Formats: sequence, C-alpha cells, structure tokens
Amino acid sequence: MILITGASSGLGAALAKLYGKESPICISGRNSDRLQLVATDVGQPCQTQVTDLSDADAVAALFNSLTTTPSLIIHCAGSGYFGPIETQSPEAIKDLLNNNVTSAIFLLREAVRRYKDQSVTMVMVMSTAALVPKAEESTYCAAKWAVKALIESVRLELKSSPMKLIAVYPGGMVTDFWPTSGKEANTNSFMSADEAAGMLKQALQSTEHGYISDLTIARG
Amino acid sequence: MILITGASSGLGAALAKLYGKESPICISGRNSDRLQLVATDVGQPCQTQVTDLSDADAVAALFNSLTTTPSLIIHCAGSGYFGPIETQSPEAIKDLLNNNVTSAIFLLREAVRRYKDQSVTMVMVMSTAALVPKAEESTYCAAKWAVKALIESVRLELKSSPMKLIAVYPGGMVTDFWPTSGKEANTNSFMSADEAAGMLKQALQSTEHGYISDLTIARG
Amino acid sequence: MILITGASSGLGAALAKLYGKESPICISGRNSDRLQLVATDVGQPCQTQVTDLSDADAVAALFNSLTTTPSLIIHCAGSGYFGPIETQSPEAIKDLLNNNVTSAIFLLREAVRRYKDQSVTMVMVMSTAALVPKAEESTYCAAKWAVKALIESVRLELKSSPMKLIAVYPGGMVTDFWPTSGKEANTNSFMSADEAAGMLKQALQSTEHGYISDLTIARG
Amino acid sequence: MILITGASSGLGAALAKLYGKESPICISGRNSDRLQLVATDVGQPCQTQVTDLSDADAVAALFNSLTTTPSLIIHCAGSGYFGPIETQSPEAIKDLLNNNVTSAIFLLREAVRRYKDQSVTMVMVMSTAALVPKAEESTYCAAKWAVKALIESVRLELKSSPMKLIAVYPGGMVTDFWPTSGKEANTNSFMSADEAAGMLKQALQSTEHGYISDLTIARG
Repeated sequence: MILITGASSGLGAALAKLYGKESPICISGRNSDRLQLVATDVGQPCQTQVTDLSDADAVAALFNSLTTTPSLIIHCAGSGYFGPIETQSPEAIKDLLNNNVTSAIFLLREAVRRYKDQSVTMVMVMSTAALVPKAEESTYCAAKWAVKALIESVRLELKSSPMKLIAVYPGGMVTDFWPTSGKEANTNSFMSADEAAGMLKQALQSTEHGYISDLTIARG
Repeated sequence: MILITGASSGLGAALAKLYGKESPICISGRNSDRLQLVATDVGQPCQTQVTDLSDADAVAALFNSLTTTPSLIIHCAGSGYFGPIETQSPEAIKDLLNNNVTSAIFLLREAVRRYKDQSVTMVMVMSTAALVPKAEESTYCAAKWAVKALIESVRLELKSSPMKLIAVYPGGMVTDFWPTSGKEANTNSFMSADEAAGMLKQALQSTEHGYISDLTIARG
Repeated sequence: MILITGASSGLGAALAKLYGKESPICISGRNSDRLQLVATDVGQPCQTQVTDLSDADAVAALFNSLTTTPSLIIHCAGSGYFGPIETQSPEAIKDLLNNNVTSAIFLLREAVRRYKDQSVTMVMVMSTAALVPKAEESTYCAAKWAVKALIESVRLELKSSPMKLIAVYPGGMVTDFWPTSGKEANTNSFMSADEAAGMLKQALQSTEHGYISDLTIARG
Repeated sequence: MILITGASSGLGAALAKLYGKESPICISGRNSDRLQLVATDVGQPCQTQVTDLSDADAVAALFNSLTTTPSLIIHCAGSGYFGPIETQSPEAIKDLLNNNVTSAIFLLREAVRRYKDQSVTMVMVMSTAALVPKAEESTYCAAKWAVKALIESVRLELKSSPMKLIAVYPGGMVTDFWPTSGKEANTNSFMSADEAAGMLKQALQSTEHGYISDLTIARG
C-alpha cells in the first residue's frame, strides 16, 4: 500500500487521486473534512487518517493504523510562511517549524524505526526553497534546508539498508498554499498540482539497479 | 558594547573573557549560576542576563536591557544531540530545534527589527555540521543547515543595510557540549574553546571596504 | 530532431537506441567506427557526425550539419580519469578538462547562440561527482563541478528564454568508461546504461507549465 | 620561506609586500617586468620566478628553484573573463580554463607530491564566484567551482597528512583584474588589494589544534 501525508490539498491530494486509481492508499492530513473530500475524489476505497505529524505519538498511531507495510510513503505535508524577517510573528514561526521540520523528522524517524530492513521507498517533498536562500522567505528556507540536511544525513545511516530516500524539490504550484501563506504570488505561470503530480509519479520509477533519488520540478 | 549569547560555557564563555577585557559586554545564557561564574572570570564589569532565546518576549527583554546599541552581537547559544535517527527521542529533538533554530531566528529577528539601519555586526556561530550531512547527526545537521539558510536569506534582505551578518562554522571543540550531547567523542585532538575564540576574534576584523563574512575553523 | 553527443558508447549509445526508435536523431562522438555500430543498432535512419567537441569550429560544424532545429539536445560526451592527485599525469589532466569542461562550454555556447529564442531543451549529463568532493577523483570532480556551475549560471542568463537547461547526475553505470578510466571499480551493483537511459527518458517529460529540471540517478 | 603565485599584481602583490617584510619569500608570475617592480616594492631580498603555471614542467621548476621547503604557499594566480555565454570567444575560454583550473591543479599536484608528509600550509585563493552561479560569469564560475571541488577532494586525500589546504573566497577588489576582464564594474566600493591582503594575513593564523580553513572576504 501507499501512504501519502499532506493529502488534504495541493500536491498530496493530486498524488492521492493518481495513485488511488491503481493501489490501496492511506491518506493523512490535519483537516478531516478536506481529507474526506479527497477520499471521495479518489473513488476507490481509501483509508483516511487525521494526524498531527508534529506529535510523535500521533505519527506512531498513523503507522499502527496501516494494515500492511507501505511500499511507498510520500511525505507532502508542510506549510508556508513568508515576509521580511522583522515582520514575521513568533507564533507563526513556531508553527512553520512544527509543520515542516518537526513533522518531517518524526515521520522519517518512525519510518526508519519500522522499515529500515525492508524495501520501502520514502519520498520527501520539499521545495526549491531547500536549494537556495531567498529574500522574504528566510524562515521557510530555514525549514526546508533542515529537511534536506535530515534526508542527506539519514541516507548515510541507511547505506546498507534496502530502504530508499527520495528528495523532491518542486517549484511554485497553484495550490491553496498561497492564499494562506501571507505572500502574494502571481500564480498564472505556476504548475497545477496535477501537473506536478503526474511528472513526479512518472519519474518515481526504479529499475533493478537504480532509481531517481533527487529531482527538481521547475516552472516553465 | 558587545552582546554574547550562549556565554555560560564553551566558545561563548571564552569569547566573553577575551572581549570583556577591552569592551563593556553583556553575556546571556540559560544558567544563572554558570553565567555568574563567567562574569567573575571576566573581571571587568559585565552585565549578565538569563534568557531563554526560544521565547520571543525574553529575546526582546534581553535587547531592552542593553544600555546602548551593541556594535557586535555574537550568537553562540546552541546545544547538541546525536545518534541514529531511530534512537532519538521526540522530546530531545524538540529541545534541539528550540535551542538551535527557534532561538537563532528569534535573536536575528529582534536584532534586525531594532538595528537594520545601524552599523551592527552580528556573528552567528554554527558548526561544520551546517556544511555537510553527517551520519548519526541528522537532526543536529538539520538544525544547523536551517540557521545557515536563515543567515543567507536574511543577508539578501539586508543588501542595502549597514548591518552585517557573519557566519562562523567551528569544528569540534573540547567543551561541556560533549558530555551532555549523548555522543562519545575522543576530544584529545579537538581545539579548546580558548583557541577557537582567539582565532575567531582575530579574524573578526574589518576594513573600510571589506570584512570576513564567513569562516570555518577546523581542527588539526 | 534530437541530437545526442557522446553517443558512441555508454549512456549516449543507450539513449540513441531508445530515442532513435521514435524520432530522427543525430549522434555524435569521437570514434567513427563505434558511432557507425551504434547507428546500425538504432536501426532507423540516423545521422552520425564525428566531432571533437573541444574544438569550437567542429561544434559549429556539428550544428550546421543538422537539417532542422533540434527540439532536444542530450550532451553525454565526457571521460573519466582518477587517482590520488600526486599520481595524475599532466597530459591526462589536460585531456580530462578538454573532454569534460571545454567541450561542455563550447556545445552549450553554440546552442545558446543559435537557439536561445526557441523552445529547445538541452540536457547536460554529468555525474554524482558534480555534487560532492571525492577522494581520488579530485580532477574529475573539478571538471564536473565546473559544468554544474556553467549550467546554473547560464540558466540565469536564459531566465526569459524559452530554452530549457536540464541537469542530470547519474551514479556509477556499467560502461566502457571504467576500463579506460584508470580506476578499478566493482561494477556488479552498477546500473546498466540501458537502465539509466530508460529512467532518464521517462523523467524527461514536461507539461504546459513545468518540467523536471534536475535529476540524480542513483545506484541501488 | 613563503611562496606566492600571481604576485605580479593585485592581491598577490599586496600579500608579497606584507609577508616580504618579515619572511624570505619567492614570488611568481607570468610577467617578468611587473614581477621585478613588485620585488622592488617588497624591499627585502625576494626571489622572483617567471612561471607559466599551466605548464607542469614549469611548475616543477618553480618548486626546484626554492632553497627550502615553503611553510606557506599562497596561490593567487588567476584571470577573469566575463560576458553572456554566447558572446564569449573560444580562445579566451581556453585561456580562462588554463589560467584558473589547469594552473591550480598543477600547482596543488606538485605541492602534494613534494610536501604531503610535511607541515606545509597551502592557501588557494579563488573568488566568491566559486560559491554561487552568476549570470554573465558562467565560464568564470565554472573555473572557480572546479578549483573548489579540487580543494575539497584533495583534502579528503590528505586527511592523515600534516599538510593543510585553506580555501579563500574574496569578493570584488580594485585591481588590474577588471580593466583586462572585459567586464565593466564600478569598483568604487570595492576593497583594495591591500585591505584584502591585511585581512587575509591576519586570519591565516593557527593554533596548536586548529586553524581557519575556509574564509570569505566580502565587500561592504
């Protein structure tokens, strides 16, 4: 089966619809109503699990709810928050770190605890903000660079493990992310989440001796 | 005057002793007793300020306590936590992020709010773990890469500001950091905090048109 | 049509066979006999062009030989050379730089001259050696980091151009590269060039608003 | 003694004047007349050696000319060349690679051959162009990233050696570099070579257990 986090909107929801057509999936998110809407869209039987990934016990409960070992875990959960550093609010900064860093650590930690001796592929979706510094995105870049460091460090720990970590860096997409991020963005030229999901799914192939381990999805 | 955080031990304490001989300084840390011991070592009058930097109000209070604008702020506060990802505890991970990421963001945010139009030099001390991924240091690297991203992004925001951000990446030092980090390290060949402080102080010079903006201090 | 350099062996040859089935292609390489063998394997009509890419006039001649603007250019040409720095020979170092750096610059330069206002996709195949430093691969890493810098800089110049630059970083493949590189490698677990070519082709898709701009193909 | 390359102008000449006051030095460059002028400025006895560092035999001859093992080698030689990629000339690109990449490799290779078991410090001066991609500096960035990769890879080879490699990334200086580079730059706010040399010398200190291994010198 396939586990998708952050599936109540955006890229996570688009991936749920794509993968749900062909495999049993479990989708997780923080908002129960929106998660149900996505499940309805999927059409096929689809497990939903409301989870706050920044709570380690809730992450364990999410994995406990799975009826089989997932062959693929796609971590899309995350949130955005922008603006010049001096205008950012302490509470929003804490939320940003919880939603992007703590949650990624807890999810990866729990997956490694359970599956490090199994052929599980774990896809960590970040942002191009993980690759460069950006003005007015300082705390968002901080959060995303943290996840990149986490992935690259844990890869070193998994060198002789069958578990695979895949890093995905998408550029700007047209999703609900923007209206709630506090940043105005002209999203006309942005990819739709469906476009990004299609490209990602097609690239997430592997062969007997290789796989695409890192990919950036650009606008344009 | 000069403000030094994380001054109750290690590099921060060593810098306090060096700078305290020639300038008025304010030292901050979480442990009042140890901070007093450092103040005594400094010899000269030296303001101490017990501060939890992961509390934005406490950070504001720290700056409010300063009697003049600091010409130099050296942020040394931070803590270490290590081990394979699957053995790390959720509570210790949260503490690590608070002590290294949230605190650096809140300190830099408050400094930029107050001083972005002034000639203030802000030195952010990280670790060589901010530069590469490391096995058994995944969350520590995550925290340190986050601070590097923060600095490099805020620099872009400060392009036309007289404020300067300096990034410092020290390698392993012999400090109290290790006994409390959960990692065994043979520190025989490590630098002392005094050695690192001396090199850092000497490098933190500037001229009319230039300054050393990034430096790595290596063992060996 | 599609232009593939370095097509006389390895990944270039494997891509020629894949793409040649469905599109007119031009394949270039330094060795005429081997290029002919690949053309025979392709089966379909396939233009061959013997080219020394480190000669700017030869690069211009290669493009002049194309009957239409290529929609896709895949630059696979390159060579390997390894060993501790003090054991490397000056002549081999010069060849390495010519085969990997000068040739990539001249090819990209000529393509931008001709096509910067057209929808041409240019894929630059490097190596995971472009992403990290490696002992006993110092000059090879130097050559590959140079090409990465070239691509990322030229991308900034092409910001408002319809031309796209795609960066590909493959890990170790089982190819003729190794016997001639001076490095012993146990290639049992390496990907075949055919496996890498298949994954690359499948990932080199684009949609109306997006495309995969950077990808790493890992062994394992 | 101290060996300084690229000493006939700019940072190399400024360092020659600083170090020449206190140590025996050998200065190398391509232009004999300018090298003599610098030697005259140094005042103290100062060996001059005209050398084309992109010729491995000439590099060996340079080291053969030294009467003692140098404790410090500062490699400043290099040249600049800029412009949109499609406007750059093939000859100038080849010169750029020779002057910056081949020369750095040959110098480091010869130094490691001779001194890898001795306490020799080798300082490699690059540019901030080694740290980021830049529009209209694509081949220059390529050359500088190559040298960075070289240094970081050879460091891995020298892990148990007493030899130290130091990487220096200066920002824009007011030197003869600009009039000959083909790029117009308003150098009013740039550092003088003397300012950069002073900061570099002061930072190139070491203690029993540590040293500054990487430093960026910024304008501003």
